Amino acid sequence: MDNQRYDERPIGLFDSGVGGLTVLEAVARRFPEESFLYLGDTARVPYGTKSARTVERYTLQVADCLLRRGVKGLVVACNTASALGLAALRAQSPVPVIGVIEPGCRAAATLGGGNRAPRVGVIGTRSTVASGAYPYHLAMLDSAIQVISLACPLFVPLVEEGWVDHPAVRMIVTDTLTPLFTQRLDALILGCTHYPVLKGVIAETMGAGVTLIDSSAAVAEELRRHLGGEIAPAPRGATQRLAFLVTDVADRFKETATRFISGIAVDAVEMVDL
Amino acid sequence: MDNQRYDERPIGLFDSGVGGLTVLEAVARRFPEESFLYLGDTARVPYGTKSARTVERYTLQVADCLLRRGVKGLVVACNTASALGLAALRAQSPVPVIGVIEPGCRAAATLGGGNRAPRVGVIGTRSTVASGAYPYHLAMLDSAIQVISLACPLFVPLVEEGWVDHPAVRMIVTDTLTPLFTQRLDALILGCTHYPVLKGVIAETMGAGVTLIDSSAAVAEELRRHLGGEIAPAPRGATQRLAFLVTDVADRFKETATRFISGIAVDAVEMVDL
Repeated sequence: MDNQRYDERPIGLFDSGVGGLTVLEAVARRFPEESFLYLGDTARVPYGTKSARTVERYTLQVADCLLRRGVKGLVVACNTASALGLAALRAQSPVPVIGVIEPGCRAAATLGGGNRAPRVGVIGTRSTVASGAYPYHLAMLDSAIQVISLACPLFVPLVEEGWVDHPAVRMIVTDTLTPLFTQRLDALILGCTHYPVLKGVIAETMGAGVTLIDSSAAVAEELRRHLGGEIAPAPRGATQRLAFLVTDVADRFKETATRFISGIAVDAVEMVDL
Repeated sequence: MDNQRYDERPIGLFDSGVGGLTVLEAVARRFPEESFLYLGDTARVPYGTKSARTVERYTLQVADCLLRRGVKGLVVACNTASALGLAALRAQSPVPVIGVIEPGCRAAATLGGGNRAPRVGVIGTRSTVASGAYPYHLAMLDSAIQVISLACPLFVPLVEEGWVDHPAVRMIVTDTLTPLFTQRLDALILGCTHYPVLKGVIAETMGAGVTLIDSSAAVAEELRRHLGGEIAPAPRGATQRLAFLVTDVADRFKETATRFISGIAVDAVEMVDL
């Protein structure tokens, strides 16, 4: 129908906390006419230590809140929620749903040497790693890909608390990543939207031979494929609106968010009860 | 009434996660005939970064779960919940409620030198410190007590993840506590039930001149005052039963708990939905 060719409604993005802002920054820059509504489930962060059943329930609750606000599409900007809640959400969402895992896997799958399939490391929360979502999706793309997964449970609290540039952080990152040093990796997927904040120290620790994959660029590319297809784009010349919902303590979210993302203003923060 | 002089029902204890086990260990040893039912709200840990309203709501929900299981008294073995939820809980609980803050304050208030009131440091979660509960209760005991408060937001994730004996932990503890070094403290209240797990490194960092106050002994003393008074004790010769409820991932709770408390078996762990 003609009236569906443009849609001014925002795209909803969500994460357990501030991590998904790394994805928001990428998509907001790439699509300057699209509006976005971000939800950080700050009352229940972290998701990465919680069970599959709990994360699935939280994912559906958060998506429902965004859908009631009238979003035209959903980006699950949280790897744990993508790993454990995406199937259930896709089964019942009336709008298209984009996760962060498949785009990251597609980016990694192209990185082999010559005609050799790549050796891919995946770091994520305990729950993301336990889910097996990355090995599964990488194998769907190319069953010859070697996957080595590692849970890094302290990285999320470090980032949520703003400890990103401290010798202790370097020590924790190095110590945690040690099992990967001897794995001759071609690529390392930052399998948690909080981790790009630690990208500098992770890159130094892993060395120049390992390509780091930050899923936010891959998610932006995935969204491009949807816009104009399943998701109607905003009208030409539309003014981008960014709004933020949190489930707890709006002030701290604003303060931490401002430290992580440089390009966009985190002003309109509203607290919601889920 | 005669039939109220003994009561075999357990005493309920709760915390956001594993921290309250330091209190459980103290009271279970001190009262070997009393039974205890522990609830760790592991699905929603940490409490210490959440708002007053949210923590109060969680406190009431958790207490309600324990009350429905038939406890004869409640110990709020979490400083954040004690700071933000105790008043509301006391107002509506049909059984006596003991918090961790007042007992710790009483222990600290006695530690001045000669006839000088003590200088007391308090470390806790962001929400506990923001609540002002410690300065308030210390001033009620002696308005001459000097109180210096400091939030240590990374200590809970370090303990929940089992990082307690690592050079990076020492670095984070030292760096976080630096503002207290010049304060000539007589005592430092470990104002979070997770912190006794880090007691060794905190003691080394603060030096021998500062007495560390672990509230668990003070809570046991408070419970002694209640037993036989407001709370009927278990019959002589009763066998102690310890049971555990968690709101998420029972296996991990068991594993982490076993590392923290040496004296008691963490066997009967049941998952509940709040």
